[in-house]
Parts: sequence; C-alpha cells; structure tokens
Amino acid sequence: MTLEATRPLNEVDLAAVGGLAQAVADEPATGATVWSASVEWKAAFRSEARIRDFAPIASDEPTGLGGTDTAPNPVEQLLAALGNCLAVGYAANASAAGIEITRLRIDVSGDLDLASFLGVRPGHAGFSGITASVHLEADADDAAIAALHRTVVGSSPVGHTLSADIPVAIDLA
Amino acid sequence: MTLEATRPLNEVDLAAVGGLAQAVADEPATGATVWSASVEWKAAFRSEARIRDFAPIASDEPTGLGGTDTAPNPVEQLLAALGNCLAVGYAANASAAGIEITRLRIDVSGDLDLASFLGVRPGHAGFSGITASVHLEADADDAAIAALHRTVVGSSPVGHTLSADIPVAIDLA
Repeated sequence: MTLEATRPLNEVDLAAVGGLAQAVADEPATGATVWSASVEWKAAFRSEARIRDFAPIASDEPTGLGGTDTAPNPVEQLLAALGNCLAVGYAANASAAGIEITRLRIDVSGDLDLASFLGVRPGHAGFSGITASVHLEADADDAAIAALHRTVVGSSPVGHTLSADIPVAIDLA
Repeated sequence: MTLEATRPLNEVDLAAVGGLAQAVADEPATGATVWSASVEWKAAFRSEARIRDFAPIASDEPTGLGGTDTAPNPVEQLLAALGNCLAVGYAANASAAGIEITRLRIDVSGDLDLASFLGVRPGHAGFSGITASVHLEADADDAAIAALHRTVVGSSPVGHTLSADIPVAIDLA
C-alpha cells in the first residue's frame, strides 16, 4: 500500500460527514446549529469581524467609496462566502459520488446599484443578482458532473440564504 | 488649530461619499457597480477566496462537519459580511449626521438546520433567520441614534441582499 492509496478521495473526511448526516437523520434536533461573528468598528470604513479564535476578517471600502482600501469590502466578502460554500458542497458531494476533483475554481460576481446605500433613492440596497461560474476538472462524465452540480446547488447553505427571503433582525442593544 | 481638530469626524471621508452620491443623483448609471470574488478549492473543505489584490480569505469547516478547522466557515463569513456592512453604514451615516462614534460592536448570529446540506431532507439549506445586535456608544441622544439606526437598516447592501430573494445563478462553465 502506498501513501497515495491511504489518502481519502479529495482528502475529504467522508466518515465525519456521513456520521453527522446519520445523527441528524436519527435525531433531527442534532442538525440545529447556531453560527456567529462579532464585528468591531476601527475607524473610517475599517472594521474587523472575529469568528471563534481565528484571525479577524478585515473590511474596508475602496477610496472611490470613501474608504482607505485596505481590505475587501462587505459585499465582496459576501460573494467570497458563496464561492467558499459552493467549494465545500462540491468537495463533499464529489467525494460521496466517488469523483476525484483535479481542479475547482468558482468565479462569483454580483450587480449592485449604489443609489440606495448612498441615500439617493430609497429601495433595495443589495445585489440585484449574483452569478457563480463553476470551473470544474474532475474524473467523471458529463452526466455525473451535471448530477453533482444539481446536488450542490440544491443544498448550498449560503446559496439558499441569498436566494431566499429570510428574516434579518437588526436591533440596537 | 490642533491635530485633533483637523481629523474628520469618525475619520470618514464624507467629501468622497457625498461626491459619489451627487454623481449618482446626477447620472443614475454611475451607481451601477459590479463586484467579484474568485474561489480556488485547495483540498478537503479548504478553499481560498481572492478579491482584487488582497490576501485571500481562507475557508474551512469545523472537524465535526468533516473539515480541518483552519479558518472560519462560509456561513460564518456571511455573518461577518453583514456585520462589516452595518459598520460601514453606521460610520457613514453617523458622520453625515454629525454624530461621533466612541465605540461600535455588532454581534451577528444565525440559525441553520444542517439537514438539507447533509442530504438528509431536501429543502432550504440556508439560515432560517439572522439577528444582528448593535452595541453603539456615541455622542447623540436616543432619538438621533434611533434615526441613525433606521437609516442604516434601510440602506444596508448586505442586509438587503440577505432579507430579499434575489436571483442566484450557479452554472457550470
């Protein structure tokens, strides 16, 4: 047995994922999770988001928007979250389907009219639409890749959060 | 004149924001922006999102979800984006209203049932709801802070993206 052969497909720990899925199937309450982030404003349009014990995610705005351009801005971070989420979905579901991923790149973009954010016109201040373009190289035929894609799109936590209208309560503490 | 007196309120470059708002008011097409991120899968549930020339935003999953727990996960990144967006909104609108921010912290959390992501039950895989709790210390009375809060909530690009159902097109390239 070579070292290569002992490495799991796509390096994904399928046993952990499968064990959790079984636990959620057996006891639905197991699937209920709460996630959080705490943001501290620094100055100007700079802030930092702390998540568990990880290094903070820095945020700023481009100079054209009045920032100092030291970090990605929040709407770019949102697109990053979608791409990262789809990457997990592909890795998990490809591994479950026995498909080895050679390369996976996901380009995400979104259109946003600044008028509402800037107070020029009231209305929807967010993205009017988001597109993700998935560049996948894998050892599977087109039908298997199309099925994989459907599964990923049909089960993406960030994708579903963006495409559904969910309650967002923002309150002064 | 002291150095203190020459620093703009909250260090926000209001002239830049105001100039952009005026440009969008004069010519609506100026407000149309496109934002993007490119995600590269690394291995297992690890990926990186590249935005312009900034250091990539690393992503992973906790070990309980089959990851190697080296970075915040995508749904946490989504919450971070919301908090960072609200921080920009507060900084911009407080400065426009002549309010000095002493401290601003925004705690964001969201509830997510893992059943759909894990393939246990089809349906909504995203957050069922998100809450943001704003801790603001500022030199303004309650009415002014309440008005500031309404303005921020009413014009948050990430907040509106999450609370509205927008088209999300995910396609194989």
